[in-house]
Amino acid sequence: MSRKRNSVTDQIKNFILRNDLRPGDLMPTESEICATLNVSRSSVREAIRTLAALDIVEVRHGYGTYVGNLSLAPLVEGLVFRGVLSPEDNFAALREVVEVREALDLAMAGPIVTALTGQNDEQLRALVGTMVDKATRNEAFPEEDLAFHTRLLSYLDNALVGQLVAAFWEVNTVVYPLLGLAPAADMDETAKAHGTMLDAAEAGRIDDYKQAVIDHYLPLRRALQKANARRAEK
Amino acid sequence: MSRKRNSVTDQIKNFILRNDLRPGDLMPTESEICATLNVSRSSVREAIRTLAALDIVEVRHGYGTYVGNLSLAPLVEGLVFRGVLSPEDNFAALREVVEVREALDLAMAGPIVTALTGQNDEQLRALVGTMVDKATRNEAFPEEDLAFHTRLLSYLDNALVGQLVAAFWEVNTVVYPLLGLAPAADMDETAKAHGTMLDAAEAGRIDDYKQAVIDHYLPLRRALQKANARRAEK
Repeated sequence: MSRKRNSVTDQIKNFILRNDLRPGDLMPTESEICATLNVSRSSVREAIRTLAALDIVEVRHGYGTYVGNLSLAPLVEGLVFRGVLSPEDNFAALREVVEVREALDLAMAGPIVTALTGQNDEQLRALVGTMVDKATRNEAFPEEDLAFHTRLLSYLDNALVGQLVAAFWEVNTVVYPLLGLAPAADMDETAKAHGTMLDAAEAGRIDDYKQAVIDHYLPLRRALQKANARRAEK
Repeated sequence: MSRKRNSVTDQIKNFILRNDLRPGDLMPTESEICATLNVSRSSVREAIRTLAALDIVEVRHGYGTYVGNLSLAPLVEGLVFRGVLSPEDNFAALREVVEVREALDLAMAGPIVTALTGQNDEQLRALVGTMVDKATRNEAFPEEDLAFHTRLLSYLDNALVGQLVAAFWEVNTVVYPLLGLAPAADMDETAKAHGTMLDAAEAGRIDDYKQAVIDHYLPLRRALQKANARRAEK
């Protein structure tokens, strides 16, 4: 990542800031940028490519270049690759991701439980129902799992936490199958623990909520331990 | 970010995986990649540019392309831009970063205090001394601050937490001056709070450690509140 000032990528970022553009706003064309910044077409093209990888701009082919969503997609991309690259380190990269997810969930337990106490969130309740049903039929439930955590964290006045948790969630979900870590047979525990989290939060019982968060990660942790044990046997 | 399978970026990533390359390993030349993957030179160049932005490869001009460090630099780049882009949202992006830093620090309090109890870490002690000295002279102390947190978190068996905290630290440190948020006059509180954190950790007092973590973020939070108040007056 170039940190040098006045690189073309920095100039394009400054252009976005000076003109007060927002995510989704149309950017000038490549040739307009060349003329404005007085730089070559190839360096503009390279800079746009870099900024697109960082989700700072988005190239919609045939339509134009727009200011990007500034999402955490680049973080996911990097962490997924890191997780897949280093499985012989006892899956350390994946264990670390699970630990960070748990740490963030536990750190947010206070405000989450406060916000949910006395509520009756039917959407969260329905997601738990679907997860438990699917687990009973031995089906995976990634969409419902992500939707549950995303909605739960939407009660916080902090969009970054939700995006980070979703990003780390995606890393685990993408990398486990790539490494042949099958969804564990004990995934019904995870499904049910979501229900326990919701019960505890709506009843205002923070310690039970925290325990349910920890329980709900146990199948993921066990899958890593088993994979390590198998590896050690070889 | 393209998620389509068999894109040239995915093919290059798969090449790294199949050949068991590690960060710092030399990659084949552009023309070798073209020949191996049977794709055009321009699409290889574009893919390399994307992967370089994500720190999955590193282009050392005049030397060649190497497997990258898979650092969190892309996350920093995106979050810094997000922080600078949206200051009229009451600096929400910066407040969220401070909250996530605090959440991670608090979540890691248990293992950090356990690891440091009974220790006498002279390096951490010296860093506190320098920070307090500099604060007395009204000097900023970003290097010492980052070095303190990095060393503290190195006691954890989780490299990702340290990298995330360092990444968020960098976002705050880069964005505050860009937005004209001067280091607050009360930064000596932050300097001293590092000392209180260290005292508490080495004495095994976890609640005092947590309180010192919270105190040590107060000047950063106050700087944001003041900036919001000034903005509201206008």
